[in-house]
Amino acid sequence: MLVIGNELLTGKVCEANLVVLAKSLRKLGILLRRVVMVRDDVDTIAREVRELSGTHDWLFTSGGVGPTHDDVTIEAVAQAFGVSVVMSPEMKGMLEAHYRERLTPGHLRMALIPEGGVLETTSEVPWPTVRVANTWIMPGVPQVFEMKIQVIEAKIGADQAFVSHAVYTKMDEGDLKPLLDRIVLAFPTIEVGSYPKWSDPTYQTKLTFDGLDPALVARARDAFIASLPPGEPQRVE
Amino acid sequence: MLVIGNELLTGKVCEANLVVLAKSLRKLGILLRRVVMVRDDVDTIAREVRELSGTHDWLFTSGGVGPTHDDVTIEAVAQAFGVSVVMSPEMKGMLEAHYRERLTPGHLRMALIPEGGVLETTSEVPWPTVRVANTWIMPGVPQVFEMKIQVIEAKIGADQAFVSHAVYTKMDEGDLKPLLDRIVLAFPTIEVGSYPKWSDPTYQTKLTFDGLDPALVARARDAFIASLPPGEPQRVE
Repeated sequence: MLVIGNELLTGKVCEANLVVLAKSLRKLGILLRRVVMVRDDVDTIAREVRELSGTHDWLFTSGGVGPTHDDVTIEAVAQAFGVSVVMSPEMKGMLEAHYRERLTPGHLRMALIPEGGVLETTSEVPWPTVRVANTWIMPGVPQVFEMKIQVIEAKIGADQAFVSHAVYTKMDEGDLKPLLDRIVLAFPTIEVGSYPKWSDPTYQTKLTFDGLDPALVARARDAFIASLPPGEPQRVE
Repeated sequence: MLVIGNELLTGKVCEANLVVLAKSLRKLGILLRRVVMVRDDVDTIAREVRELSGTHDWLFTSGGVGPTHDDVTIEAVAQAFGVSVVMSPEMKGMLEAHYRERLTPGHLRMALIPEGGVLETTSEVPWPTVRVANTWIMPGVPQVFEMKIQVIEAKIGADQAFVSHAVYTKMDEGDLKPLLDRIVLAFPTIEVGSYPKWSDPTYQTKLTFDGLDPALVARARDAFIASLPPGEPQRVE
Protein backbone atom coordinates (compact mmCIF):
# COMPACT_ATOMS: atom_id res chain seq x y z
CA MET A 1 0.00 0.00 0.00
CA LEU A 2 1.20 3.48 -0.85
CA VAL A 3 -0.42 6.21 1.26
CA ILE A 4 -0.10 9.73 -0.07
CA GLY A 5 -0.70 13.03 1.70
CA ASN A 6 1.00 15.88 3.51
CA GLU A 7 -1.99 16.07 5.86
CA LEU A 8 -1.06 12.66 7.28
CA LEU A 9 2.66 13.35 7.66
CA THR A 10 1.96 16.65 9.43
CA GLY A 11 -0.47 15.07 11.90
CA LYS A 12 -3.45 17.14 10.74
CA VAL A 13 -5.38 14.02 9.83
CA CYS A 14 -5.14 10.54 11.32
CA GLU A 15 -4.69 7.91 8.61
CA ALA A 16 -7.80 5.72 8.45
CA ASN A 17 -7.65 3.67 5.24
CA LEU A 18 -4.86 1.23 6.07
CA VAL A 19 -6.89 -0.75 8.58
CA VAL A 20 -9.79 -0.98 6.11
CA LEU A 21 -7.57 -2.31 3.33
CA ALA A 22 -5.69 -4.60 5.73
CA LYS A 23 -8.91 -6.26 6.93
CA SER A 24 -10.18 -6.70 3.38
CA LEU A 25 -6.95 -8.29 2.21
CA ARG A 26 -7.15 -10.82 5.07
CA LYS A 27 -10.57 -11.88 3.80
CA LEU A 28 -9.12 -12.16 0.29
CA GLY A 29 -6.18 -14.25 1.49
CA ILE A 30 -3.71 -11.58 0.36
CA LEU A 31 -0.73 -10.85 2.63
CA LEU A 32 -0.14 -7.12 3.12
CA ARG A 33 3.65 -6.89 3.31
CA ARG A 34 4.51 -3.23 3.24
CA VAL A 35 3.01 0.23 3.59
CA VAL A 36 4.85 3.37 2.52
CA MET A 37 3.59 6.88 3.23
CA VAL A 38 4.96 9.86 1.31
CA ARG A 39 4.24 13.52 0.70
CA ASP A 40 2.34 15.02 -2.28
CA ASP A 41 5.34 15.02 -4.60
CA VAL A 42 5.09 13.63 -8.15
CA ASP A 43 8.62 12.26 -8.44
CA THR A 44 8.57 10.68 -4.99
CA ILE A 45 5.22 8.99 -5.63
CA ALA A 46 6.27 7.85 -9.11
CA ARG A 47 9.45 6.27 -7.72
CA GLU A 48 7.48 4.44 -5.02
CA VAL A 49 4.83 3.21 -7.46
CA ARG A 50 7.53 1.84 -9.76
CA GLU A 51 9.32 0.13 -6.87
CA LEU A 52 6.25 -1.27 -5.07
CA SER A 53 4.29 -2.34 -8.17
CA GLY A 54 7.40 -4.04 -9.53
CA THR A 55 8.06 -6.08 -6.39
CA HIS A 56 4.52 -7.04 -5.32
CA ASP A 57 1.51 -8.76 -6.90
CA TRP A 58 -0.74 -5.81 -6.15
CA LEU A 59 -0.27 -2.18 -5.15
CA PHE A 60 -3.03 -0.02 -3.68
CA THR A 61 -2.52 3.74 -3.53
CA SER A 62 -4.57 5.93 -1.20
CA GLY A 63 -4.95 9.68 -1.61
CA GLY A 64 -3.86 12.43 -3.96
CA VAL A 65 -6.76 12.10 -6.38
CA GLY A 66 -8.85 15.18 -7.00
CA PRO A 67 -8.66 18.42 -8.92
CA THR A 68 -6.28 20.61 -6.87
CA HIS A 69 -2.54 21.31 -7.13
CA ASP A 70 -1.74 18.82 -4.34
CA ASP A 71 -3.51 15.93 -6.11
CA VAL A 72 -0.70 14.40 -8.13
CA THR A 73 -1.23 10.66 -7.87
CA ILE A 74 -2.64 10.20 -11.40
CA GLU A 75 0.32 12.04 -12.91
CA ALA A 76 2.75 10.07 -10.73
CA VAL A 77 1.26 6.67 -11.63
CA ALA A 78 1.38 7.62 -15.31
CA GLN A 79 5.05 8.60 -14.90
CA ALA A 80 5.79 5.33 -13.08
CA PHE A 81 4.33 3.27 -15.93
CA GLY A 82 5.80 5.50 -18.65
CA VAL A 83 2.44 6.55 -20.10
CA SER A 84 0.64 9.88 -20.62
CA VAL A 85 -2.26 11.31 -18.69
CA VAL A 86 -5.40 11.30 -20.85
CA MET A 87 -9.02 12.26 -20.35
CA SER A 88 -11.36 9.31 -20.03
CA PRO A 89 -14.38 9.97 -22.30
CA GLU A 90 -16.51 7.78 -20.03
CA MET A 91 -15.63 9.70 -16.85
CA LYS A 92 -15.91 13.03 -18.69
CA GLY A 93 -19.45 12.08 -19.66
CA MET A 94 -20.33 11.19 -16.08
CA LEU A 95 -18.95 14.54 -14.80
CA GLU A 96 -20.90 16.44 -17.45
CA ALA A 97 -24.08 14.62 -16.47
CA HIS A 98 -23.47 15.38 -12.79
CA TYR A 99 -22.33 19.04 -12.87
CA ARG A 100 -24.20 20.12 -16.06
CA GLU A 101 -23.94 23.91 -16.43
CA ARG A 102 -21.80 24.22 -13.26
CA LEU A 103 -18.97 22.13 -14.80
CA THR A 104 -15.55 23.86 -14.68
CA PRO A 105 -12.13 22.86 -16.04
CA GLY A 106 -11.28 22.07 -12.41
CA HIS A 107 -14.02 19.47 -12.24
CA LEU A 108 -12.93 17.92 -15.53
CA ARG A 109 -9.53 17.14 -14.04
CA MET A 110 -11.28 14.33 -12.17
CA ALA A 111 -11.67 12.53 -15.52
CA LEU A 112 -7.90 12.35 -16.07
CA ILE A 113 -6.38 8.87 -15.92
CA PRO A 114 -3.07 7.26 -16.87
CA GLU A 115 -3.28 6.07 -20.50
CA GLY A 116 -4.27 2.39 -20.59
CA GLY A 117 -5.89 2.59 -17.16
CA VAL A 118 -8.83 0.24 -16.64
CA LEU A 119 -12.05 1.62 -15.16
CA GLU A 120 -13.24 -0.90 -12.58
CA THR A 121 -16.85 -0.69 -11.45
CA THR A 122 -19.53 -2.72 -9.74
CA SER A 123 -23.27 -2.16 -9.79
CA GLU A 124 -23.05 -0.67 -6.27
CA VAL A 125 -20.09 1.60 -7.08
CA PRO A 126 -20.64 3.00 -10.58
CA TRP A 127 -18.07 5.84 -10.33
CA PRO A 128 -14.95 4.13 -11.73
CA THR A 129 -11.98 3.02 -9.69
CA VAL A 130 -8.88 3.35 -11.88
CA ARG A 131 -6.46 0.45 -12.11
CA VAL A 132 -3.20 0.55 -14.07
CA ALA A 133 -1.83 -2.98 -14.48
CA ASN A 134 -1.48 -4.23 -10.85
CA THR A 135 -1.90 -0.77 -9.29
CA TRP A 136 -5.27 0.30 -7.88
CA ILE A 137 -5.70 4.06 -7.47
CA MET A 138 -7.90 4.67 -4.45
CA PRO A 139 -9.13 7.97 -3.00
CA GLY A 140 -7.94 9.33 0.35
CA VAL A 141 -11.30 10.41 1.77
CA PRO A 142 -12.15 7.55 4.15
CA GLN A 143 -15.86 7.35 3.31
CA VAL A 144 -15.03 6.98 -0.39
CA PHE A 145 -12.13 4.60 0.23
CA GLU A 146 -14.37 2.36 2.31
CA MET A 147 -17.07 2.39 -0.38
CA LYS A 148 -14.58 1.53 -3.11
CA ILE A 149 -13.02 -1.34 -1.17
CA GLN A 150 -16.07 -3.33 -2.37
CA VAL A 151 -14.78 -3.03 -5.92
CA ILE A 152 -11.43 -4.54 -4.95
CA GLU A 153 -13.19 -7.33 -3.05
CA ALA A 154 -15.36 -8.05 -6.09
CA LYS A 155 -12.48 -8.15 -8.58
CA ILE A 156 -9.47 -9.84 -6.97
CA GLY A 157 -8.52 -12.26 -4.24
CA ALA A 158 -7.84 -15.88 -3.52
CA ASP A 159 -10.27 -18.64 -2.69
CA GLN A 160 -8.98 -18.88 0.89
CA ALA A 161 -9.21 -16.26 3.63
CA PHE A 162 -6.76 -15.98 6.52
CA VAL A 163 -8.10 -17.41 9.78
CA SER A 164 -7.26 -15.82 13.14
CA HIS A 165 -7.83 -16.91 16.73
CA ALA A 166 -7.00 -15.04 19.92
CA VAL A 167 -6.29 -16.08 23.50
CA TYR A 168 -6.28 -13.56 26.36
CA THR A 169 -4.20 -14.09 29.51
CA LYS A 170 -3.23 -12.20 32.64
CA MET A 171 0.40 -13.33 32.22
CA ASP A 172 3.15 -10.95 31.15
CA GLU A 173 5.24 -11.43 28.01
CA GLY A 174 8.33 -12.39 29.97
CA ASP A 175 6.53 -15.38 31.47
CA LEU A 176 4.79 -16.24 28.20
CA LYS A 177 7.95 -16.31 26.11
CA PRO A 178 9.01 -19.95 26.71
CA LEU A 179 5.43 -21.19 26.09
CA LEU A 180 5.16 -19.19 22.85
CA ASP A 181 8.58 -20.33 21.64
CA ARG A 182 7.38 -23.94 21.78
CA ILE A 183 4.29 -23.16 19.65
CA VAL A 184 6.32 -21.16 17.10
CA LEU A 185 8.69 -24.13 16.79
CA ALA A 186 5.92 -26.76 16.55
CA PHE A 187 3.77 -24.81 14.03
CA PRO A 188 6.15 -23.07 11.62
CA THR A 189 3.39 -22.03 9.18
CA ILE A 190 1.27 -20.40 11.87
CA GLU A 191 1.93 -16.76 12.68
CA VAL A 192 1.95 -16.23 16.43
CA GLY A 193 1.53 -12.69 17.81
CA SER A 194 1.86 -11.41 21.36
CA TYR A 195 0.33 -8.05 22.31
CA PRO A 196 0.53 -6.59 25.81
CA LYS A 197 -2.36 -4.36 26.81
CA TRP A 198 -1.96 -1.54 29.26
CA SER A 199 -4.72 -0.67 31.68
CA ASP A 200 -7.29 -3.33 30.78
CA PRO A 201 -8.52 -5.09 33.93
CA THR A 202 -9.67 -8.24 32.06
CA TYR A 203 -6.31 -9.32 30.60
CA GLN A 204 -2.66 -8.37 30.25
CA THR A 205 -1.49 -10.06 27.02
CA LYS A 206 -3.39 -11.07 23.90
CA LEU A 207 -1.95 -13.93 21.84
CA THR A 208 -2.99 -14.40 18.23
CA PHE A 209 -2.70 -17.41 15.92
CA ASP A 210 -3.08 -16.81 12.18
CA GLY A 211 -2.87 -18.96 9.08
CA LEU A 212 -4.64 -20.17 5.96
CA ASP A 213 -5.51 -23.67 7.25
CA PRO A 214 -8.38 -23.38 9.78
CA ALA A 215 -7.74 -26.77 11.41
CA LEU A 216 -4.04 -26.07 11.88
CA VAL A 217 -4.67 -22.60 13.33
CA ALA A 218 -7.09 -24.14 15.86
CA ARG A 219 -4.55 -26.85 16.76
CA ALA A 220 -1.82 -24.26 17.41
CA ARG A 221 -4.18 -22.22 19.58
CA ASP A 222 -5.28 -25.32 21.53
CA ALA A 223 -1.69 -26.51 22.04
CA PHE A 224 -0.87 -23.10 23.50
CA ILE A 225 -3.94 -23.14 25.78
CA ALA A 226 -2.96 -26.61 27.02
CA SER A 227 0.44 -25.27 28.08
CA LEU A 228 -0.99 -22.49 30.26
CA PRO A 229 -0.97 -22.69 34.08
CA PRO A 230 -4.21 -23.16 36.08
CA GLY A 231 -6.58 -20.16 35.97
CA GLU A 232 -5.64 -19.32 32.39
CA PRO A 233 -6.72 -18.37 29.76
CA GLN A 234 -9.08 -15.48 30.58
CA ARG A 235 -10.92 -15.95 27.31
CA VAL A 236 -10.59 -17.39 23.81
CA GLU A 237 -11.77 -16.10 20.43
CA MET B 1 9.41 6.77 10.80
CA LEU B 2 9.59 3.00 10.63
CA VAL B 3 6.50 1.27 12.01
CA ILE B 4 6.87 -2.41 12.81
CA GLY B 5 4.21 -5.01 13.48
CA ASN B 6 2.19 -7.80 11.87
CA GLU B 7 -0.82 -6.73 13.96
CA LEU B 8 -0.99 -3.47 11.99
CA LEU B 9 -0.56 -5.03 8.55
CA THR B 10 -3.27 -7.61 9.29
CA GLY B 11 -5.78 -5.00 10.46
CA LYS B 12 -6.00 -6.39 14.01
CA VAL B 13 -4.82 -3.11 15.47
CA CYS B 14 -5.22 0.39 14.10
CA GLU B 15 -1.89 2.24 14.01
CA ALA B 16 -1.96 5.10 16.52
CA ASN B 17 1.61 6.36 16.98
CA LEU B 18 2.20 8.09 13.65
CA VAL B 19 -0.13 10.99 14.37
CA VAL B 20 1.48 11.49 17.79
CA LEU B 21 4.99 11.62 16.33
CA ALA B 22 3.83 13.75 13.39
CA LYS B 23 2.35 16.40 15.67
CA SER B 24 5.44 16.46 17.88
CA LEU B 25 7.77 16.87 14.93
CA ARG B 26 5.74 19.87 13.72
CA LYS B 27 6.33 21.54 17.10
CA LEU B 28 10.03 20.72 16.80
CA GLY B 29 10.23 22.16 13.27
CA ILE B 30 11.19 18.75 11.84
CA LEU B 31 9.66 17.71 8.51
CA LEU B 32 8.37 14.13 8.54
CA ARG B 33 9.10 12.94 5.00
CA ARG B 34 8.42 9.26 4.96
CA VAL B 35 6.79 6.46 6.90
CA VAL B 36 7.42 2.80 6.16
CA MET B 37 5.51 -0.05 7.79
CA VAL B 38 6.85 -3.60 7.71
CA ARG B 39 6.27 -6.99 9.28
CA ASP B 40 8.14 -8.47 12.27
CA ASP B 41 11.06 -9.73 10.20
CA VAL B 42 14.67 -9.05 11.27
CA ASP B 43 16.21 -8.75 7.81
CA THR B 44 13.42 -6.56 6.46
CA ILE B 45 13.59 -4.21 9.44
CA ALA B 46 17.40 -4.08 9.33
CA ARG B 47 17.35 -3.16 5.63
CA GLU B 48 14.82 -0.39 6.26
CA VAL B 49 16.73 1.00 9.25
CA ARG B 50 19.92 1.12 7.19
CA GLU B 51 18.15 2.84 4.29
CA LEU B 52 16.06 5.32 6.30
CA SER B 53 18.71 6.25 8.88
CA GLY B 54 21.23 6.76 6.09
CA THR B 55 19.02 9.13 4.09
CA HIS B 56 17.38 11.19 6.87
CA ASP B 57 18.54 13.29 9.82
CA TRP B 58 16.48 11.24 12.26
CA LEU B 59 14.72 7.90 12.22
CA PHE B 60 12.06 6.86 14.74
CA THR B 61 11.06 3.22 14.96
CA SER B 62 7.78 2.15 16.57
CA GLY B 63 7.07 -1.37 17.79
CA GLY B 64 8.80 -4.71 18.05
CA VAL B 65 10.40 -4.12 21.45
CA GLY B 66 9.61 -6.60 24.18
CA PRO B 67 10.59 -10.08 25.23
CA THR B 68 8.72 -12.38 22.81
CA HIS B 69 9.73 -14.08 19.55
CA ASP B 70 7.99 -11.38 17.44
CA ASP B 71 9.96 -8.55 19.08
CA VAL B 72 12.97 -8.24 16.79
CA THR B 73 13.58 -4.52 16.46
CA ILE B 74 16.62 -4.39 18.79
CA GLU B 75 18.30 -7.21 16.87
CA ALA B 76 17.42 -5.57 13.54
CA VAL B 77 18.77 -2.14 14.54
CA ALA B 78 21.97 -3.80 15.76
CA GLN B 79 22.26 -5.60 12.42
CA ALA B 80 21.63 -2.37 10.52
CA PHE B 81 24.45 -0.60 12.36
CA GLY B 82 26.77 -3.62 12.28
CA VAL B 83 26.98 -4.01 16.06
CA SER B 84 26.13 -6.77 18.54
CA VAL B 85 23.22 -6.98 20.92
CA VAL B 86 24.42 -6.56 24.52
CA MET B 87 22.77 -6.43 27.91
CA SER B 88 22.65 -2.97 29.41
CA PRO B 89 23.79 -3.23 33.06
CA GLU B 90 21.71 -0.16 33.90
CA MET B 91 18.49 -1.59 32.45
CA LYS B 92 19.23 -5.01 33.95
CA GLY B 93 19.49 -3.39 37.36
CA MET B 94 16.18 -1.61 36.87
CA LEU B 95 14.46 -4.87 35.85
CA GLU B 96 15.94 -6.69 38.87
CA ALA B 97 14.68 -3.94 41.16
CA HIS B 98 11.22 -4.10 39.60
CA TYR B 99 10.60 -7.85 39.28
CA ARG B 100 12.78 -9.02 42.22
CA GLU B 101 12.19 -12.75 42.84
CA ARG B 102 9.72 -12.99 39.91
CA LEU B 103 12.43 -12.06 37.36
CA THR B 104 12.74 -14.56 34.48
CA PRO B 105 15.15 -14.79 31.51
CA GLY B 106 12.21 -13.54 29.43
CA HIS B 107 12.04 -10.32 31.44
CA LEU B 108 15.78 -9.80 31.15
CA ARG B 109 15.47 -9.66 27.37
CA MET B 110 14.04 -6.18 27.86
CA ALA B 111 17.52 -5.03 28.93
CA LEU B 112 19.05 -5.96 25.56
CA ILE B 113 20.21 -3.05 23.41
CA PRO B 114 22.40 -2.59 20.32
CA GLU B 115 26.02 -2.12 21.41
CA GLY B 116 26.82 1.59 21.65
CA GLY B 117 23.17 2.50 22.12
CA VAL B 118 22.56 5.61 24.23
CA LEU B 119 19.98 5.45 27.04
CA GLU B 120 17.94 8.64 26.84
CA THR B 121 15.91 9.62 29.88
CA THR B 122 14.18 12.59 31.45
CA SER B 123 13.12 13.04 35.06
CA GLU B 124 9.51 12.27 34.03
CA VAL B 125 10.42 9.17 31.98
CA PRO B 126 13.16 7.30 33.86
CA TRP B 127 12.84 4.00 31.95
CA PRO B 128 15.39 4.52 29.14
CA THR B 129 14.55 5.18 25.52
CA VAL B 130 17.29 3.63 23.41
CA ARG B 131 18.90 5.69 20.65
CA VAL B 132 21.53 4.34 18.25
CA ALA B 133 23.18 7.24 16.40
CA ASN B 134 20.24 9.02 14.71
CA THR B 135 17.77 6.17 15.30
CA TRP B 136 15.31 6.33 18.20
CA ILE B 137 13.82 2.98 19.20
CA MET B 138 10.28 3.57 20.43
CA PRO B 139 7.74 1.08 21.77
CA GLY B 140 4.58 0.14 19.87
CA VAL B 141 2.11 0.28 22.79
CA PRO B 142 0.44 3.68 22.26
CA GLN B 143 0.33 4.69 25.95
CA VAL B 144 4.07 4.09 26.25
CA PHE B 145 4.87 5.69 22.90
CA GLU B 146 2.96 8.80 23.90
CA MET B 147 4.75 8.96 27.24
CA LYS B 148 8.17 8.58 25.62
CA ILE B 149 7.52 11.26 23.01
CA GLN B 150 8.38 13.71 25.82
CA VAL B 151 11.92 12.38 25.78
CA ILE B 152 12.28 13.12 22.06
CA GLU B 153 10.81 16.58 22.56
CA ALA B 154 13.26 17.24 25.38
CA LYS B 155 16.34 16.09 23.46
CA ILE B 156 16.05 17.20 19.84
CA GLY B 157 14.43 19.77 17.61
CA ALA B 158 14.90 23.16 16.05
CA ASP B 159 14.21 26.59 17.51
CA GLN B 160 11.30 27.13 15.13
CA ALA B 161 7.98 25.26 15.00
CA PHE B 162 5.85 24.91 11.89
CA VAL B 163 2.86 27.24 11.83
CA SER B 164 -0.47 26.17 10.31
CA HIS B 165 -3.66 28.07 9.51
CA ALA B 166 -6.91 26.70 8.11
CA VAL B 167 -9.78 28.19 6.12
CA TYR B 168 -13.12 26.38 5.73
CA THR B 169 -15.36 26.93 2.70
CA LYS B 170 -18.54 25.52 1.21
CA MET B 171 -16.91 25.54 -2.26
CA ASP B 172 -15.85 22.35 -4.02
CA GLU B 173 -12.28 21.64 -5.08
CA GLY B 174 -13.04 22.11 -8.76
CA ASP B 175 -14.10 25.71 -8.13
CA LEU B 176 -11.28 26.34 -5.65
CA LYS B 177 -8.50 25.15 -7.96
CA PRO B 178 -7.84 28.44 -9.86
CA LEU B 179 -7.83 30.42 -6.56
CA LEU B 180 -5.42 27.98 -4.93
CA ASP B 181 -3.13 27.91 -7.95
CA ARG B 182 -2.60 31.67 -7.58
CA ILE B 183 -1.62 31.33 -3.90
CA VAL B 184 0.73 28.39 -4.60
CA LEU B 185 2.43 30.50 -7.28
CA ALA B 186 2.65 33.67 -5.16
CA PHE B 187 3.91 31.92 -1.99
CA PRO B 188 6.30 29.17 -3.12
CA THR B 189 7.59 28.44 0.42
CA ILE B 190 4.10 27.98 1.86
CA GLU B 191 2.56 24.54 1.74
CA VAL B 192 -1.07 24.77 0.65
CA GLY B 193 -3.39 21.82 1.29
CA SER B 194 -6.95 21.21 0.15
CA TYR B 195 -9.11 18.63 1.94
CA PRO B 196 -12.70 17.90 0.94
CA LYS B 197 -14.96 16.75 3.76
CA TRP B 198 -17.90 14.49 3.16
CA SER B 199 -21.08 14.86 5.14
CA ASP B 200 -20.18 17.87 7.30
CA PRO B 201 -22.95 20.48 7.11
CA THR B 202 -20.67 23.39 8.14
CA TYR B 203 -18.17 23.22 5.27
CA GLN B 204 -17.17 21.29 2.17
CA THR B 205 -13.44 21.94 1.76
CA LYS B 206 -10.74 22.79 4.29
CA LEU B 207 -7.70 24.69 3.03
CA THR B 208 -4.49 24.71 5.04
CA PHE B 209 -1.47 27.03 4.89
CA ASP B 210 1.76 25.82 6.53
CA GLY B 211 5.27 27.17 6.88
CA LEU B 212 8.04 28.18 9.27
CA ASP B 213 7.55 31.97 8.99
CA PRO B 214 4.38 32.94 10.93
CA ALA B 215 3.94 36.30 9.14
CA LEU B 216 4.26 34.75 5.69
CA VAL B 217 1.82 31.93 6.52
CA ALA B 218 -0.73 34.51 7.67
CA ARG B 219 -0.19 36.58 4.50
CA ALA B 220 -0.80 33.55 2.26
CA ARG B 221 -3.96 32.68 4.18
CA ASP B 222 -5.23 36.27 3.99
CA ALA B 223 -4.47 36.54 0.27
CA PHE B 224 -6.53 33.40 -0.28
CA ILE B 225 -9.42 34.71 1.85
CA ALA B 226 -9.40 37.97 -0.12
CA SER B 227 -9.88 36.01 -3.36
CA LEU B 228 -13.00 34.19 -2.15
CA PRO B 229 -16.50 35.12 -3.40
CA PRO B 230 -19.07 36.80 -1.10
CA GLY B 231 -20.37 34.60 1.70
CA GLU B 232 -17.01 32.84 2.12
CA PRO B 233 -15.09 31.71 4.13
CA GLN B 234 -17.23 29.78 6.61
CA ARG B 235 -14.54 30.05 9.27
CA VAL B 236 -10.82 30.64 9.77
CA GLU B 237 -8.31 29.07 12.15
